Amino acid sequence: MEKKKNVSMAVIKRMPKYYRYLGELVKNDVDRISSKELGEKIGFTASQIRQDLNNFGDFGQQGYGYNVKELHNQIGTILGVGKEYNAVLIGAGNIGQAIANYSRFTDIGLGITAIFDANPKLVGMRIRDVEIKDIDELKEYLEENTIDMGILCVPRINAQKVCDVLVNGGVKGIWNFAPIDLHVPETVKVENVHLSESLLTLVYQMNK
Amino acid sequence: MEKKKNVSMAVIKRMPKYYRYLGELVKNDVDRISSKELGEKIGFTASQIRQDLNNFGDFGQQGYGYNVKELHNQIGTILGVGKEYNAVLIGAGNIGQAIANYSRFTDIGLGITAIFDANPKLVGMRIRDVEIKDIDELKEYLEENTIDMGILCVPRINAQKVCDVLVNGGVKGIWNFAPIDLHVPETVKVENVHLSESLLTLVYQMNK
Repeated sequence: MEKKKNVSMAVIKRMPKYYRYLGELVKNDVDRISSKELGEKIGFTASQIRQDLNNFGDFGQQGYGYNVKELHNQIGTILGVGKEYNAVLIGAGNIGQAIANYSRFTDIGLGITAIFDANPKLVGMRIRDVEIKDIDELKEYLEENTIDMGILCVPRINAQKVCDVLVNGGVKGIWNFAPIDLHVPETVKVENVHLSESLLTLVYQMNK
Repeated sequence: MEKKKNVSMAVIKRMPKYYRYLGELVKNDVDRISSKELGEKIGFTASQIRQDLNNFGDFGQQGYGYNVKELHNQIGTILGVGKEYNAVLIGAGNIGQAIANYSRFTDIGLGITAIFDANPKLVGMRIRDVEIKDIDELKEYLEENTIDMGILCVPRINAQKVCDVLVNGGVKGIWNFAPIDLHVPETVKVENVHLSESLLTLVYQMNK
């Protein structure tokens, strides 16, 4: 399986969806599926599915369809599922606590090793057995531990400052819930979850 | 201001970002801004910004730039900010509680009038003064109250069933946090926040 370069962001964003649907098929003991059937489930055309998957290698056989379990595993490998990712979570407010509590992410390989907050009332508490530390200890923690990912759940006003500490501390990815576009070096990847923008998009569509 | 038809989803998804940036400029007492300066801030080209805004009407003046406050208000109007949206939130787990607690959405006009959960331990509790009711009361509540939006934070397995109750109850939009693609009539709009897919997208990019 040879990975081609320059896969478009649109394709990449569809891969987790394939992974999710195939995961459900695996759970339901479906062995094989054609690109047409898979397309009907997901809401894509068969040719779109074949095109998307062709970016990553040869999957399936003409007239025979995909081996569901195999394709699920292969897409998982492409996405990087199954590796372990050490993460720190910054900001133990509403969203931060929800993310830290959400066990589903563990399946993807996410391991939150420490949580940081500026609020002394929260410091020392635990979420799913992970201690909340003082935000002032973040820099030193990143020096002493190999952390792959920062999960940023702080208010907008502090987000870039904390992001800089994470980047200097060597993280390779930032999952950003703060309503701000972060400035990072090209080597660091950012994935935004901008909830207010999501809500505004819905509200706009409801008004049309 | 004449609203043109068939604005692409890509443009629509950029409008909340304009709204956010312009809101920050308003807060910082910036009166005017050129499409070039605005583009530099947001990371778009000046011509992209002019094109996007042209979908909705004539904004700004050649060589004079945009009146920041006016443009902010106009984009807000386009998006439907300032109206009030009655919403019910279903599923008072981690994400549901975080959403219900997040005061920022009130500024957009979101008013959560009731929260529903199937867990009897949660029923009767309050989040920001909104009572958690038994999920069995949802249907009747929707008959007795005019609700615009459902916020769906239930587990995947229950999501479509609850969605159907919301749709039959007359909601026009569903903000869906359940990891599933909902089936709804065309008149009902769905905006998904699929956190696991967002995390997988980040993990993929970190591995490249």
